[in-house]
Amino acid sequence: MTHIFEEGLGRREANYVALTPIDFIARAAEVYGDRPAIVYGETRRNWRETYERTRRLASALTRVGVGHGDTVAVLLPNIPEMVEAHFGVPMAGAVLNALNTRLDIASMLFMLRHGEAKVLIVDTEFGDFAHRVALELPHVRIVSVADVQPAEPGKFPNATDYEAFLAQGDPGFVWTPPADEWDAIALNYTSGTTGDPKGVVYHHRGAYMNALSNILEWDLPKHCVYLWTLPMFHCNGWCFPWTVAARAGVNVCLRRFEARYVLDLIRREGITHYCGAPIVQSAIANAPAEWREGITQKVHAMVAGAAPAPAVIAKMKEIGFDLTHVYGLTEVYGPAAVCAKQAHWDALDDDERARLNARQGVRYHLQAGVTVLDPDTLEAVPADGETLGEIMFRGNICMKGYLKNEQATEEAFRGGWFHTGDLGVLMPDGYVRIKDRRKDIIISGGENISSIEVEDALYRHPAVAVAAVVAMPDPKWGEVPCAFVELREGASVTVEEIIAHCRLFLAGYKLPKVVRFGELPKTSTGKIQKFQLRMAVGSDRAIDLAGDPPPKG
Amino acid sequence: MTHIFEEGLGRREANYVALTPIDFIARAAEVYGDRPAIVYGETRRNWRETYERTRRLASALTRVGVGHGDTVAVLLPNIPEMVEAHFGVPMAGAVLNALNTRLDIASMLFMLRHGEAKVLIVDTEFGDFAHRVALELPHVRIVSVADVQPAEPGKFPNATDYEAFLAQGDPGFVWTPPADEWDAIALNYTSGTTGDPKGVVYHHRGAYMNALSNILEWDLPKHCVYLWTLPMFHCNGWCFPWTVAARAGVNVCLRRFEARYVLDLIRREGITHYCGAPIVQSAIANAPAEWREGITQKVHAMVAGAAPAPAVIAKMKEIGFDLTHVYGLTEVYGPAAVCAKQAHWDALDDDERARLNARQGVRYHLQAGVTVLDPDTLEAVPADGETLGEIMFRGNICMKGYLKNEQATEEAFRGGWFHTGDLGVLMPDGYVRIKDRRKDIIISGGENISSIEVEDALYRHPAVAVAAVVAMPDPKWGEVPCAFVELREGASVTVEEIIAHCRLFLAGYKLPKVVRFGELPKTSTGKIQKFQLRMAVGSDRAIDLAGDPPPKG
Repeated sequence: MTHIFEEGLGRREANYVALTPIDFIARAAEVYGDRPAIVYGETRRNWRETYERTRRLASALTRVGVGHGDTVAVLLPNIPEMVEAHFGVPMAGAVLNALNTRLDIASMLFMLRHGEAKVLIVDTEFGDFAHRVALELPHVRIVSVADVQPAEPGKFPNATDYEAFLAQGDPGFVWTPPADEWDAIALNYTSGTTGDPKGVVYHHRGAYMNALSNILEWDLPKHCVYLWTLPMFHCNGWCFPWTVAARAGVNVCLRRFEARYVLDLIRREGITHYCGAPIVQSAIANAPAEWREGITQKVHAMVAGAAPAPAVIAKMKEIGFDLTHVYGLTEVYGPAAVCAKQAHWDALDDDERARLNARQGVRYHLQAGVTVLDPDTLEAVPADGETLGEIMFRGNICMKGYLKNEQATEEAFRGGWFHTGDLGVLMPDGYVRIKDRRKDIIISGGENISSIEVEDALYRHPAVAVAAVVAMPDPKWGEVPCAFVELREGASVTVEEIIAHCRLFLAGYKLPKVVRFGELPKTSTGKIQKFQLRMAVGSDRAIDLAGDPPPKG
Repeated sequence: MTHIFEEGLGRREANYVALTPIDFIARAAEVYGDRPAIVYGETRRNWRETYERTRRLASALTRVGVGHGDTVAVLLPNIPEMVEAHFGVPMAGAVLNALNTRLDIASMLFMLRHGEAKVLIVDTEFGDFAHRVALELPHVRIVSVADVQPAEPGKFPNATDYEAFLAQGDPGFVWTPPADEWDAIALNYTSGTTGDPKGVVYHHRGAYMNALSNILEWDLPKHCVYLWTLPMFHCNGWCFPWTVAARAGVNVCLRRFEARYVLDLIRREGITHYCGAPIVQSAIANAPAEWREGITQKVHAMVAGAAPAPAVIAKMKEIGFDLTHVYGLTEVYGPAAVCAKQAHWDALDDDERARLNARQGVRYHLQAGVTVLDPDTLEAVPADGETLGEIMFRGNICMKGYLKNEQATEEAFRGGWFHTGDLGVLMPDGYVRIKDRRKDIIISGGENISSIEVEDALYRHPAVAVAAVVAMPDPKWGEVPCAFVELREGASVTVEEIIAHCRLFLAGYKLPKVVRFGELPKTSTGKIQKFQLRMAVGSDRAIDLAGDPPPKG
């Protein structure tokens, strides 16, 4: 039925434009063209120059036959070329597939094949991979970025240098928004611990929405100075390449994380905002005080990947950094929930506030919902802080689905919600609290034990820097909790002391039966690799953790 | 052609939700339910209460048969019920038609008929209108808001009291986003000076986008305290009812503007942001200094409707208020361009900076474009600051079109751009500068004279408070500029002095041939009613301006 508000009032060119975060760089260049966009060592480029380089990239890609729906893979650290790829690739209508720089070559080859990449833009540091691609996937055009070292000819036999590639492109290239804002903009493989990685497909609309949500959560001002401590290959840096453009801010690039250098940059470049996993926050918070000297501006940090430990929250407060805890997964563009702070929390003691701040929280600004549902019936759990269910999202900040994997897509979206696989509870104040990954629940004598609950208890001990708890097979109980603990530098504690400490917080059956000290294995983004720990206890072989060097930074 | 990024990756319930600004109040209530939403005299309501009242309103409307695509008209000052209508009406699927409280009854009756209103929510102050509606449009259900006076039974024979109406509604009413974000959310009639008013139809997507653009332009923080100096009937208060909800801010309501009271509120309620026409800004800037005493917070003002005079810009700077100049029209949801300030302007002298700040500027954050085109060929004019063209917009912040007026809609959108009817130039820095309304151009001896250029010159005289220039018929030149000038309180100046002053800035043929002093006629939103001035000079009868009282506030 057509009514008066529809008749003759359809969408048309003048009043309907597909949402795309690429437009943010166009406006930054138009309005704030002279302002700094990129800072990287001695390199300084303004938004006009950066926009020009991204158009050159789009034009050059177009000229080599890249078009709508083609995949362009990149393997780059957080250098300016990585920022450029986030605009130049989708401007050509293509899909950006940013590879994790810490992955093994076989996994990356799988991704290039599965994602059907036509072009690979790769830093010369990764010559071994480039060489394998040249041998095994000769149809993939390789563009090499010589950031710190020239391309070794033997490893990059047919590669084009990135700057030469840009030089072939037209700086005035006219890009158009996607025909449909539902078109894919990025492809990000999840680093599954079992089975093949799944290719998460992002759409322009969702990237646009999450880029804006980042602004809304942080009250992010125009011309913010953003430090790239979070890898851009990780959920497209939580959409921040687009966020920073929308604010005409500054991208302070960083080849690799090192706490002292990062604190130097924060001081020297006047950094106002950065993101990072708990390990990054911890390294910054626990750095020697003199490294922070001279930092006078307010610094805002966003943390996700795991709930920040109370000690880190307290330490950040002590050094005057403002910490925002967000929660999400690759499938929801990085952060899609936030532990929104409440004014009345200020009156609470540090421990209680830290506990509240460590929760996963509420839906992100432009996300439609996050909640906890019974994974089978999809009924809401009561907001009692106790009833376990699965954390689920819905809204415009959810992926299109998994590439070439309809079954996984259907399962993930069953019943109109995206199923995270994280188990949680809904608190009386409406905040979601994660209890565990489904696979991280320890079933001991028929009782469920949340490994996170045990970890929380461990983290409350002053000597504990990092803790992880996994299920260890047990002939009597089926499984029992096994704790892996990394101590603070200079601290020492016995197993008995740790157990006695845990007894203050945990029921007897939840106490770790085994405690091992040493550095924990972590992913490139600072997540603890529990599968390694599980392998260690499953095979009854302890990893020789104690022999490892102390954590860096 | 389906490619790999489309196959099995369509929109579904979990990952696609229609954009609507109604959702902002839902999140505000969910996350910040205890925080203040409404302040009005002694009335204080938090977001939970306000959300509940809007759901009651939606429910009550639904129960009396209001549904998808129906029109609900409101005639209300900036009181809490007006904020509620911006959510409750679209939650029922209906379209909000906010009427200008200063309009004549005949015009409003035309609007109710043309817009096919089913319900009218009306303040008891407007009893005469309610009575006429009851007589002439008996099918329109009347809901009366007894804010400062009870409903006179004779004037509201069958009306339902607003609070009683809400009481019939369900506070837990479950609303759903529109089936399509292109659905209408509001109907706003333009106050045309000739012909019938045109009904501008807004869609949910556009209202959402402009509400966010307001945040982006102002770096508007969470929990801002917003003062309702701008009528909500004017382009839905430039979308700020939705903006304030998206920030979980405070709506400080105001039945009518009075400078001293407004300054009291700014102090008492800690106002951080407000909007208003130049007349509002001028009243605030020129108020006695003691009225501003005790205002210690930073206050941000947004001005549109006409470029602010340099003296107002300077005065606002002097009193420490931050002024942002935006530009738009009803058809683009209020502001859709902004005179974005540049850091290097700070080094310029006050006059030069004021001149730069008075320009219409660049596209608003989430608008696709604003530019100056030849109105016939739609070719871009050179960015030379001289070539006259028509200012045009395109993007998601453009109306659906004019209600039941396909011809006007087609004309307005001809060639893929919304034609504003404003004449302007494109400056070398890419900023749009308005020269005149098409009908305000004065053609003298075959030369075009911009009335705005002459007004700019007049405004640079320290004695001038308000100035307007119109074309006066002239037997020799065809037309000549005639200036109407309102002087600052206590100032005096002669016609000769004014002309001598103008000679410093204008070519001889552009000088006003006649200068008249007195208060200028203005619309409810502070726009000077040039048509009255034109009538005055056209009929060769001067309005007796001098006899009017001095401007209020």
